[in-house]
Amino acid sequence: MKSIKINTAGGESVILMGGTVDDLRERLPAKGLYIITDTNVGRIYRDIFPKGEVLEIEAGEKSKTPQVVIDLCRRMLDAGADRSSFVLGFGGGVVCDIAGLTASLFMRGVRHAFVSTSLLSQIDASIGGKNGVNLGEYKNIIGTIRQPEFVLCDHNMLATLPEEEFLSGMGEMYKHAAIRDRNLFFDLSASADRIAARDPGILGDLILRSVRIKAAIVRRDPMENGIRRLLNFGHTFGHVLEIHYGMPHGVAVARGMVIAAELSAWTGEMPHAEYRLLSVEMEKAGLIREAELPPNVIGRIARDKKSEAGSVNFVLLRAVGKAIVRRLSLTDLQAFVNYYNERKDNSQSIQQGK
Amino acid sequence: MKSIKINTAGGESVILMGGTVDDLRERLPAKGLYIITDTNVGRIYRDIFPKGEVLEIEAGEKSKTPQVVIDLCRRMLDAGADRSSFVLGFGGGVVCDIAGLTASLFMRGVRHAFVSTSLLSQIDASIGGKNGVNLGEYKNIIGTIRQPEFVLCDHNMLATLPEEEFLSGMGEMYKHAAIRDRNLFFDLSASADRIAARDPGILGDLILRSVRIKAAIVRRDPMENGIRRLLNFGHTFGHVLEIHYGMPHGVAVARGMVIAAELSAWTGEMPHAEYRLLSVEMEKAGLIREAELPPNVIGRIARDKKSEAGSVNFVLLRAVGKAIVRRLSLTDLQAFVNYYNERKDNSQSIQQGK
Repeated sequence: MKSIKINTAGGESVILMGGTVDDLRERLPAKGLYIITDTNVGRIYRDIFPKGEVLEIEAGEKSKTPQVVIDLCRRMLDAGADRSSFVLGFGGGVVCDIAGLTASLFMRGVRHAFVSTSLLSQIDASIGGKNGVNLGEYKNIIGTIRQPEFVLCDHNMLATLPEEEFLSGMGEMYKHAAIRDRNLFFDLSASADRIAARDPGILGDLILRSVRIKAAIVRRDPMENGIRRLLNFGHTFGHVLEIHYGMPHGVAVARGMVIAAELSAWTGEMPHAEYRLLSVEMEKAGLIREAELPPNVIGRIARDKKSEAGSVNFVLLRAVGKAIVRRLSLTDLQAFVNYYNERKDNSQSIQQGK
Repeated sequence: MKSIKINTAGGESVILMGGTVDDLRERLPAKGLYIITDTNVGRIYRDIFPKGEVLEIEAGEKSKTPQVVIDLCRRMLDAGADRSSFVLGFGGGVVCDIAGLTASLFMRGVRHAFVSTSLLSQIDASIGGKNGVNLGEYKNIIGTIRQPEFVLCDHNMLATLPEEEFLSGMGEMYKHAAIRDRNLFFDLSASADRIAARDPGILGDLILRSVRIKAAIVRRDPMENGIRRLLNFGHTFGHVLEIHYGMPHGVAVARGMVIAAELSAWTGEMPHAEYRLLSVEMEKAGLIREAELPPNVIGRIARDKKSEAGSVNFVLLRAVGKAIVRRLSLTDLQAFVNYYNERKDNSQSIQQGK
C-alpha cells in the first residue's frame, strides 16, 4: 500500500493506494461511525463494511439531490449521531460527493473519509475535497470544498465494475495525461490491450501516476482559483453532453475533451496534428462516441458554473500533455459550435455515401 | 465608525461598527450583487439597499429550513448568478444565518457579507462565521462555519426594533458579561434606565464592548474546539425553552443562563450568592420569564448538538464574569431538572397560598 499526502488549506488528506478495508482499523473511531453507501455497493460489500450504522441511498446520479443530503442528516440525527460522529462514504463518485457534503453540513461539519470502489472515484472524485449535489439539470451547484481525512483505493474492487463505469474512469486518466503528462498519454496508448483486460498490475501503476498528477495540482490550488481549473478540461462540453444524452460522466468528459481539443486547434492554440493524435488514440481506447452538440449549448454553458460574468474561462490544449486556460467570448464559442455541428453533418453525409 | 478585524482559519472578517450603508460602496462589487433579506426588513429599508438583485424570504425563524436555502440557490441561478457573485445578507440573525449558508453552498462558495439590522445580530449572530438552518425542531443541524467578509452594524437601525427583539439582544449582552466581563455586567445594571430608553450613545458603547468579547474568543477558536464553547452559555436549556414555548431566541437564552447559573450553584461550582446576583439583575432588566423545564428535557439535550457520545459538555459559571466547561452525566442533569421543577412547583404553591 502506498500513501499520498495532500496538505491544503482545505485540510489534510491521505490517499491509501492499493490498501484494503483491513488497513482502516486504526483510522476509524471505535464508535459513532456512519457508513453512507448505495444499493449496488451495499449488496456487494456489506459483509466487509467496518462496524457502524449503514445508511444506504439509491445507486446512480439521480441521488445527487439536496433532498438526499437532508434526508441523510435526518437519518444520522435519528440514529443518535452527534458532533463526534464520523462519516465514511463507501462507493463511487456519487456516494463520495453526497457523503462529503453530508459530513460538511451535519452540525456544521463532522469528520469524514472515503472508501473508493470505482475506477473514476479512485482516480478523481475523491481527491481534492470537492463535493456537491445537482440542482435540477445543473450539476454540483450546491456543495463545499472540504478534504476527507483519507481515501482508501482498493484496486481489487475494480474487478466487478461494469464496463461503462470502467470506461468512465479511463476517460479521466486520459484527461490527466492530456493536460499534464505526455508520457502517461503514450503509456496509456501502449498498454491499451492490458488495460482492456483489466490487468491489475498495470492499472495500479496508471492510477497512481494519475492520482499524483491531480494531487500535485490540488496541493497547489485547493480553492480552485488558478491551476486547478485545468482539471476541468473536457468538462464544459462534457456536462452538456452528459445531461442531454444521459451519457456516463467519464464518457461524456472524454467526448468533451476531444471537442475541446478541436476547439484548441480551431482557435490556433494547438497544431491540428495534436488534435488528431488525441482523438485517434482515445477512439482506439473505446472512449469516443460521436455526438452532436445539442441546441442552445452556449446558453447552457453560460449558465453552468464554469462561466463567470458573461464570458467563459475555457481549458484548451497547446499540445497533448500541456493545457492552458483562455477566456473565450460566447460569440466565438457559438461560431465554433456552428462549425463543429456542420462539419459533423458533412462527415456523416460522406460516410453514408450521400 | 470603528473597524474590528477578525482573522481566523475560517477567513478574515471586518466588523464595521456604527457605519451606514454609504460606507459599503468600495467594499461591494459593481455588479453581481445578490441581497438576501426578509419581508420586514425589505419593507423598511428597500430604498437604501445597494444596487443588486433582491431576494426576499419570509420574516421569522420558520424560514430557517434547508428548502429555503435550496430555493435561494435556485433563484440566484435563475437570475444569472455565477462563481463571481457576491451575497449580501441584509437583516437580523435569521437572514444572516440563511444568507451565510447560501453563500457557503452556492457553486461551492461565493463571497458574502452582512448588514446587521437587529441588536441580536449586531452583537452576536453575524460574528464568528457560524450559519445554519433547522431540521424540524432541531436547531442549526445543517450549516457551515465561514466568515463573512464584513459585517456592517448601523446602530440607527435599532430605533425601529420591536421590544421583544430588543430584549433578545440584551440577553446576549448579559451573556457576554456573565461569561467574561464582570465590569460589563455591573455597567449593564447601572445603565438599565438609559438602555430601556434606547439611548444610542450607551448602546453603541455596550455593543462594541460585547462584540470585542466575542471577537476575542472567536479569533482564538474559529472551529469551536475550545474556549468558544463558552459562548454556548445558556443555550442548552435555552434551545429547549425556545422550541417548547416558542420564546424568542435571546429571551430563551436569558432564561437558560439563569437556569445554568442555578445549576452551577447546585453542582457547587459557584457560590449561591452569585446566582442570586445574576438572576436579580437580569429580572430587573425585564429579561426573565418564569418557565418550567418541559418533559423529556434530558432526551432533547442528549440529541441536541451540544451533546457528544452520551454525556454532555455544559457551560457553567464560577462567578458572574467567569465561565467554564464541565462534563456532566445525563443522570446528574436529570437530578438537577427534578430539583429545579419541584422547587418551582413549591414556590408557585407558596405564592398561591397553598
